[in-house]
Amino acid sequence: MRYGKREVLCKLLNIDLPIIQAGMVWVSGAKLAAAAANAGVLGVIGAASMQPDLLRQHLRKAKGLTRKSFAVNVPLLYSKTDQQIEVALEEGVRIFITSAGSPKPYTAKLKDAGCTVLHVISSPLLAKKCEDAGVDIVIAEGFEAGGHNGRDEITTMVLIPEVVKAVKIPVIAAGGIASGGAIAAAFALGAWGAQMGSRFAVTVESSAHPAFKQAIVEAPAGGTMLCMKKLVPVRILKNHFFETVHRMEEAGASVEQLLETLGKGRARRGMFEGDREEGELEIGQISGAIEDIPTVSELVERLKKEYELCIADLKGS
Amino acid sequence: MRYGKREVLCKLLNIDLPIIQAGMVWVSGAKLAAAAANAGVLGVIGAASMQPDLLRQHLRKAKGLTRKSFAVNVPLLYSKTDQQIEVALEEGVRIFITSAGSPKPYTAKLKDAGCTVLHVISSPLLAKKCEDAGVDIVIAEGFEAGGHNGRDEITTMVLIPEVVKAVKIPVIAAGGIASGGAIAAAFALGAWGAQMGSRFAVTVESSAHPAFKQAIVEAPAGGTMLCMKKLVPVRILKNHFFETVHRMEEAGASVEQLLETLGKGRARRGMFEGDREEGELEIGQISGAIEDIPTVSELVERLKKEYELCIADLKGS
Repeated sequence: MRYGKREVLCKLLNIDLPIIQAGMVWVSGAKLAAAAANAGVLGVIGAASMQPDLLRQHLRKAKGLTRKSFAVNVPLLYSKTDQQIEVALEEGVRIFITSAGSPKPYTAKLKDAGCTVLHVISSPLLAKKCEDAGVDIVIAEGFEAGGHNGRDEITTMVLIPEVVKAVKIPVIAAGGIASGGAIAAAFALGAWGAQMGSRFAVTVESSAHPAFKQAIVEAPAGGTMLCMKKLVPVRILKNHFFETVHRMEEAGASVEQLLETLGKGRARRGMFEGDREEGELEIGQISGAIEDIPTVSELVERLKKEYELCIADLKGS
Repeated sequence: MRYGKREVLCKLLNIDLPIIQAGMVWVSGAKLAAAAANAGVLGVIGAASMQPDLLRQHLRKAKGLTRKSFAVNVPLLYSKTDQQIEVALEEGVRIFITSAGSPKPYTAKLKDAGCTVLHVISSPLLAKKCEDAGVDIVIAEGFEAGGHNGRDEITTMVLIPEVVKAVKIPVIAAGGIASGGAIAAAFALGAWGAQMGSRFAVTVESSAHPAFKQAIVEAPAGGTMLCMKKLVPVRILKNHFFETVHRMEEAGASVEQLLETLGKGRARRGMFEGDREEGELEIGQISGAIEDIPTVSELVERLKKEYELCIADLKGS
């Protein structure tokens, strides 16, 4: 997997393979990030669901579980954003993945502190804005990705070449990737690396509730849908909560009506507490292809083998 | 490009490269299909917009423009379907691409007549039904594809591996493919071949109105959207007609209201007559990456070069 620009990315992030374990709300704590780092990919702690104190606990725990470096994912739109960044810097984190908000106010501060900054985007236009703001690497996330998503609905297949053309900085592909073949496809589209969320969410070390993991394993193709487009679009598993929202949206529900139905704590209820029917189960479209719950180390070995087989087939041509 | 299963597909369809020019309403007549066939890919006449007599004219014209075989695409849901198939058989067509309807009633008849049958699907479940009905090859079309689309919104990146796993017959990838790199990506996902619509719609030989071609060239990333989900979902360029429909859908418009706004002949008005604002401009999401109007022969040469460069880069790894 390491060759040319993919080799450059590995050196930039101090990893063995050009693969990133996505930071995921309620799913990627110390255990998952450390296991990913130990397996040679970029481990990421998802700070979104954590108060600053809990984030500090996870960072310290992760440092006890791996000697490799790891990253923190911080959405830039909460009141606790500044504190989260402060805590991560204090605990020695030097790779930040920022998302959901403008990179402008934070990138300079993080660069001054000696950090590498990655920002998640969903269009070539936003990628260019990141490059202009001094971001080091963009993660281009397609329509098929789980959780919160862009408004343009651009799929990974279409998005990656467009972003690669729009910027000079490295581009990591995300959305719909859960196999070595899909990693090779992302590289063929011009990506320097591949980020995977859903696949890492369904591993032994993920903090997702066992019932949530099982729901993903059982999900058929087409088992997720993007909804809540009048709020922030989010891809979730189809369950009773989704059906309720979907019916409301078909009838033209307002922002206020959707917010009332969503209520508080629904993502936690589903992903962390395991309520399969009334929880908000954020996951990618690729969940239809996820059929087991391996350890992170088993998964990474499998990805390497699948990738090699795929490249051998393409080489024949 | 020809190797292993891709070589098998080329032999099955009597083509030099594992590439299909998609049959497209108002866009792919005799000129485009013959140019594609002459360039070594599968040329396809899109019968959807043609009365049986006009189809016969196009078939005869195409036979005068190429000595290669070509295919006809027939949607299986119109009253003229039987006549269209009859005409194509009479004129010697032996490769049929069927779509939009069950393959069951027609596949046996076409196989009895010595034909190769391809059917367009948008989910692994439909792919399996095609295999059971005796279809020879499935074309798996992702959410990013132009024109009419599936209800599950499964993207090419996710759809191809799922369909390849679901059936034993050859699988051709469609949706979001307009470059040699994307063809390589489709192969990495397990496809035997790649179908391209939007890219062939914007060639010298396509029958799309010049104003429609120009609108595609000018389209930005994210310049299309899937709409009309309460009727048959269709991906079109964002224009005044789209904005009208989109506002209606956000307000919960009914099937009847949408049908009334759609009216009659809107696709013809946009794609064939060139009304950029009030026409229904069916095109894929990849239109954001289409920036010129080459001849088919120039295009195919470019795809080959891009593919070779992409494979050389992957080989390094």
